Amino acid sequence: MGIAKIKGISTTKSFARSCKELKKKGVKEDGLYYLSTANGVLYQTFCDMTTAGGGWTLVASVHENNIYGKCTIGDRWSSQHGNSAYMPEGDRSWSNRVIFGTVEAATSDDYKNPGYYDLKAQDVSVWHVHNDAEVEHWKMASILRYHTQTNFLHLYGGNLYYLFKQHPVKYLAGDCNKDRGPSVPIVYDLGNEETTTNLYGPYSKAQIVPGFVTFRVFNNEKSAMAMCSGVKPTGCDTEAYCIGGGGYFAESSYQCGDFTAFAWNGYGTHAQWSVARELIESAVLIFYR
Amino acid sequence: MGIAKIKGISTTKSFARSCKELKKKGVKEDGLYYLSTANGVLYQTFCDMTTAGGGWTLVASVHENNIYGKCTIGDRWSSQHGNSAYMPEGDRSWSNRVIFGTVEAATSDDYKNPGYYDLKAQDVSVWHVHNDAEVEHWKMASILRYHTQTNFLHLYGGNLYYLFKQHPVKYLAGDCNKDRGPSVPIVYDLGNEETTTNLYGPYSKAQIVPGFVTFRVFNNEKSAMAMCSGVKPTGCDTEAYCIGGGGYFAESSYQCGDFTAFAWNGYGTHAQWSVARELIESAVLIFYR
Amino acid sequence: MGIAKIKGISTTKSFARSCKELKKKGVKEDGLYYLSTANGVLYQTFCDMTTAGGGWTLVASVHENNIYGKCTIGDRWSSQHGNSAYMPEGDRSWSNRVIFGTVEAATSDDYKNPGYYDLKAQDVSVWHVHNDAEVEHWKMASILRYHTQTNFLHLYGGNLYYLFKQHPVKYLAGDCNKDRGPSVPIVYDLGNEETTTNLYGPYSKAQIVPGFVTFRVFNNEKSAMAMCSGVKPTGCDTEAYCIGGGGYFAESSYQCGDFTAFAWNGYGTHAQWSVARELIESAVLIFYR
Repeated sequence: MGIAKIKGISTTKSFARSCKELKKKGVKEDGLYYLSTANGVLYQTFCDMTTAGGGWTLVASVHENNIYGKCTIGDRWSSQHGNSAYMPEGDRSWSNRVIFGTVEAATSDDYKNPGYYDLKAQDVSVWHVHNDAEVEHWKMASILRYHTQTNFLHLYGGNLYYLFKQHPVKYLAGDCNKDRGPSVPIVYDLGNEETTTNLYGPYSKAQIVPGFVTFRVFNNEKSAMAMCSGVKPTGCDTEAYCIGGGGYFAESSYQCGDFTAFAWNGYGTHAQWSVARELIESAVLIFYR
Repeated sequence: MGIAKIKGISTTKSFARSCKELKKKGVKEDGLYYLSTANGVLYQTFCDMTTAGGGWTLVASVHENNIYGKCTIGDRWSSQHGNSAYMPEGDRSWSNRVIFGTVEAATSDDYKNPGYYDLKAQDVSVWHVHNDAEVEHWKMASILRYHTQTNFLHLYGGNLYYLFKQHPVKYLAGDCNKDRGPSVPIVYDLGNEETTTNLYGPYSKAQIVPGFVTFRVFNNEKSAMAMCSGVKPTGCDTEAYCIGGGGYFAESSYQCGDFTAFAWNGYGTHAQWSVARELIESAVLIFYR
Repeated sequence: MGIAKIKGISTTKSFARSCKELKKKGVKEDGLYYLSTANGVLYQTFCDMTTAGGGWTLVASVHENNIYGKCTIGDRWSSQHGNSAYMPEGDRSWSNRVIFGTVEAATSDDYKNPGYYDLKAQDVSVWHVHNDAEVEHWKMASILRYHTQTNFLHLYGGNLYYLFKQHPVKYLAGDCNKDRGPSVPIVYDLGNEETTTNLYGPYSKAQIVPGFVTFRVFNNEKSAMAMCSGVKPTGCDTEAYCIGGGGYFAESSYQCGDFTAFAWNGYGTHAQWSVARELIESAVLIFYR
C-alpha cells in the first residue's frame, strides 16, 4: 500500500476560488466542483450556475436532525451543549472556521465548508430543500428559493463569517428592538411573499414582513438568533421565525436548537407559533455570490 | 453531473468508481485507493483484491465504541439521541447520504464512505476485525469473514442505501415474523457455521440458523435492527444477534446502540444472551462487489 | 499563502511524508501543504519552516470548547462519554488512528491528522495559540512556544501514537509517583521558565518544575493524563497542570475534560489551582520533527 496509490490525483492547474470565478471561465452546468481557499485548502461543493446569472457557491446548510433535542448533538448552528448560560455563543459555528458535513449530505445533516469564511462575496441565495433530497433533485425538491441583489455583504466584510463577528450571535449581546443586524430585500426565485408568510405559524404573521432576509436578532429574553429566512421581524418572539442561535434561551430550553421554537405548539401543526411541517422538514441551503 | 466535474482537480485520467473496476483494469494488490462517485466526489477506501476473485470495495464499518452507552455519541448506526420513540429511525445512517470516519480508523470508529450509496453492486462481503487493528493487518486480525454470491443486491437497487429505503430500519414499521428483509446465503472465507454460532450467546442458538446474512429485522417489541451478521433469525429476540437499528427499543434502553444487546447478560461473558468478547471487540466491515 | 501552495497536489510525483522532507527539498515558507502517509492517505496541514531550522509538521491541537462540560461532546482528547469508570481510557484518541478537525480550525476545535500516527519523528514542538486565531496569525497569537531537541521520540516508536501505546492514558494503569512517562527538557521559542510557571495556578507552583514537557502521568486517584505542557510534575495534583486524559477521574467529574481541572477554583481566576485565563483560552498545537 504505497504512494503509487494516489498518483491518480493530479493536475498542473490551480483551482478556482468560487463558482462565480468558474462561471466567468465559462462553466455553465450546475453541479459539484472543486474550489480552493486563499490558503490552498481544497474542497468540493455545489455550484448553482443558472439562477439569476449563476455563479452561486453553496457554503452551508442548516438542517434540523431532531427538533425534540434541546441544543443536543447535531445542533451545530446553535449548541450541542444543552441550553446553558455558560455558553452564550453556543458552538459559535456562525463566526468560527470549524467546518462539518459534506455536500452530498447537505439536506440530511448540517453542512459548512471553507467557502463560508473564505469567499469574498456580495450577495446570498437561500434554498429551502426537502430533507434527504439528492443533489440531482435539489431544485425540484425546493419549497422556497430567493436571493439578494444589493451587494450588502460588501458592507460586512464579504461573507457571513465576518458579518457575525461584527454582530455576535450571543445571549445578552443586544436588545430585540435596538440591535437587529441587517434586513436585506430579496428577489424570489421560487415562491413569493404570501407563500413565505404561510410557512410560519399564524401567530407570527403579526411580527414578520416577508420579502427580506435578516441576520442576527434578539428575542424578548435577549437570546440571539442568526437568520430569519425570507422575513424581517417587527416583533420579539423571533424564536418562532428565526433559526440558529447562541447557546442559551432564557425563556425555555425548548427554544434551543438549530430550528429554535419551530415546533412550539406541536410538530408541523402549523397552529399558533408552530411552522408548517414542510418548513421543519427542509434544510436551509446558503449560497454566496 | 459526472466524472468531468472533477477534471478541475485532476488529471487526464478519470477515477475508477469501484474496486471491481480497478480489478478489471488489472490492479491486483490489496490496499487503499482513490475512487470517485457518479457525481465526481473523490474518496479513499480499502480494496480487497484477493478474496474470491477480488474487486471488493470497503464501504462501511460498524464499531461499538461504548457498549454501556444507550444510543449515545458514537452510535451512528443506531442513534446518538438516546432511546426515544420520537426518533423511530434514529440517526438514519443506513438510508441517508451522511458519511463519517476514515478508512485508516475503520476498526476504531464507525465508518461510512460515499461508495455505500453510490456503487451499483451485486454482493456483500463482511469481515469482523478486532478493534484498532491497523489496515495492514486486518485480514490477520479477522475472527470471521464471508461473502454472498447470489447477486441479491441487484433486486434491491444495487446497494444497502436503496435496500434500506425499501426496508426502513424504523420502530413499528413491521412485525418480527412477517416483515423480515432478505436472508442471503453466505460462503465462508474465514470460519464456518459452527464458529459463527459460537460467537453469539448460548440462548441465541435456538433462534438462529448460521450460513446467512440477514437485513432489517424486528424484535418482539417491533424495534428495528439493520443486519444479522452470519445468521438467519428464526426467533424474535433479535437484539441478541443483530446490529444497528432505529432509535427506539421499547423493551429497554439498554438494547439501544450499534451493538444492541450484545452485553445483555454482562460484557463479553458469553453467558445466556451475551455474545463472546471477541465479537463485541471487533468492528464489522462491509464490502460491496 | 496562496494557490501555489497546492501545486503540491498538482503533480504526478509522490507527496512528501512530512514537513521535514519538504524542508530538505528546499521549501522555506510557513504555510499549508499536502502530505501523504505511508499508506498513501493524503492530508493537508501546517508546516513551521522557520523555528529552530524548520521542518515541523503540525499533527494535533488540544482545544477546550466547554470547560463546564465534564467529558462531554468536543472532549476528544479525554472522553465524550461522561466521567465513567467503564471507560478507563476514554475516547482513546491519544493511542488510536481516529482523526478529527481541520488545520484551518485548529485553534477553534480539536484537531488530529494522520501525521500523528504516521510520521517517524525525533522531537516535538508545542505552541499555545489563542483560540480562534487564524492560521496566518498563529505565531503572533501565541503565548508560549517551545520544542525538544533530545530525539526522545526515537525511544518511543517515533511518535506519540506509539508512545501512548507503551504508556496508556488509562485510569488505574499506574501510580502518581512510580509510573510517570518521559519528562523531556525543552528549549523556549517564546516565553521562559518564569512565564510558564505563571500560566498555572499559584498552588501548582510547589508541584511543577518548568523547562520540560511530560507525557502520561497519574494523579492521586490514579486517573491518567496525557501531557503536562512546559512542566515536570513533582506532585500528584496533576489535574491542575496536565491536559487530556482517560475517561474517569475518581475525585470529581469536574476534572474530566480536555483541560482537566484548569478552572477548579473558577474560570480564569488564576487563584489557588485555577490557571490563567489566557491558558484556558489557548489551543495547544503539537508538532513533530
